[in-house]
Amino acid sequence: MSNTGWLKIVGLGPGSEALITPEASSALEQATDAVGYVPYVERVAPRPGLTRHGSDNREEIRRAEQALAMAAEGRRVAVVSSGDPGVFAMGAAVFEALEAGEPAWRALDIQVLPGVSAMLAASARLGAPLGHDFCCLNLSDNLKPWALIEKRLRLAAEADFAMAFYNPRSRSRPEGFARALAVLREACGEARPIMFARAVATPEESVRVTTLGEATPEMADMRTLVMVGSSLTRRIAGAQREWVYTPRSVPSSGAAS
Amino acid sequence: MSNTGWLKIVGLGPGSEALITPEASSALEQATDAVGYVPYVERVAPRPGLTRHGSDNREEIRRAEQALAMAAEGRRVAVVSSGDPGVFAMGAAVFEALEAGEPAWRALDIQVLPGVSAMLAASARLGAPLGHDFCCLNLSDNLKPWALIEKRLRLAAEADFAMAFYNPRSRSRPEGFARALAVLREACGEARPIMFARAVATPEESVRVTTLGEATPEMADMRTLVMVGSSLTRRIAGAQREWVYTPRSVPSSGAAS
Repeated sequence: MSNTGWLKIVGLGPGSEALITPEASSALEQATDAVGYVPYVERVAPRPGLTRHGSDNREEIRRAEQALAMAAEGRRVAVVSSGDPGVFAMGAAVFEALEAGEPAWRALDIQVLPGVSAMLAASARLGAPLGHDFCCLNLSDNLKPWALIEKRLRLAAEADFAMAFYNPRSRSRPEGFARALAVLREACGEARPIMFARAVATPEESVRVTTLGEATPEMADMRTLVMVGSSLTRRIAGAQREWVYTPRSVPSSGAAS
Repeated sequence: MSNTGWLKIVGLGPGSEALITPEASSALEQATDAVGYVPYVERVAPRPGLTRHGSDNREEIRRAEQALAMAAEGRRVAVVSSGDPGVFAMGAAVFEALEAGEPAWRALDIQVLPGVSAMLAASARLGAPLGHDFCCLNLSDNLKPWALIEKRLRLAAEADFAMAFYNPRSRSRPEGFARALAVLREACGEARPIMFARAVATPEESVRVTTLGEATPEMADMRTLVMVGSSLTRRIAGAQREWVYTPRSVPSSGAAS
């Protein structure tokens, strides 16, 4: 095995160049290969000496194995994810492939380079809705049974967490998000704020604040990050726009306790 | 009120220059004033035309009011936080001050610039321990009653979330973290992985992986981000080091369901 190969699992941030860390940019400049889901690989500028390997959405493990094998051959491989690689992205897939794969891969020089996650970018656009204790769930039932999603939603509501949801609504299973909204309405009440942040930090960005009572499944698509407030989350009408934040502290007599 | 003043709530990332976004750097270059907790304000390089206003840790609301008042006077104000401003940082404090303060402040040009949070940086150093559903709690009982912290820990364990903890151990109340460890041991078992990531992305960085059974309160201090795995979290022995990750999927027969 070459000593010069490496594998960096790189977070590209939510979309804008202005949100890519210098550490990530530098890794992309040094890489011989960029590996990832097609639209993310296309965010890496082409240049001589760089091969871009785009693959389909459902190919995470095969893609991770390909990346590890190339690094073992001495190549400098950037596995790219949107947002942060550790949040519902390629980080876990690479380590899954590492654990199950060639023993020699464990000697590779591997680094994870964090990025601004979609959740943090969406939260920033709205104010500070995750400003106190929160949880973050992937609502896709490709990856776990629906019963577990529902259980987690109910426990998160009981804990009075603010919540952030990735993958709220897949094309193949649109009914899942309608069920999630019904569970949340029952557990948190109709008045609770819900936020839809679509394609944040891209030209298609849009955000909307409403209540669980007014929310409909069509407000989310595959590019939407959804957030639900805790019982203490506040909406503030600004002169031009509305802000949403969750206070830093819970009074001893707070609704949450 | 001047039209040219603004307030940007800026995430400086966990410590290293290489993790500050270009958007944040650009805001700091344009600001006339940087406002924040002393060690964070000191991370903004001094230059002519910039006044740095450092204040104490417990001064968040007064600091936020000062920043809003300066922006209302037409100054370009950067309120700086370590990590991301929306996660247990100045974002919520500024919106709290905005809601309670001068009505004219609501017309100000306010933006939140997200950053790489300590949680994401710590997770990256360890592999991908937050690679599936997780929650994030502030363990400081300055801000909420201990009973609520304990309730949230028990519900998070029941939901089988991976967990990230900010402020695990304050100088004034060191016993809180010992109680949290006892609750987690009871709810998750002695074998569950726990990770201590101290001062990540600074020269003092150190990380340690152990189990709840082996963990002691002294392993954390005020600069430590603590993470606990879910029931599915895996430890992989590498050639030089250990990785920790939480798989992306939960089998239908998984321990979590």
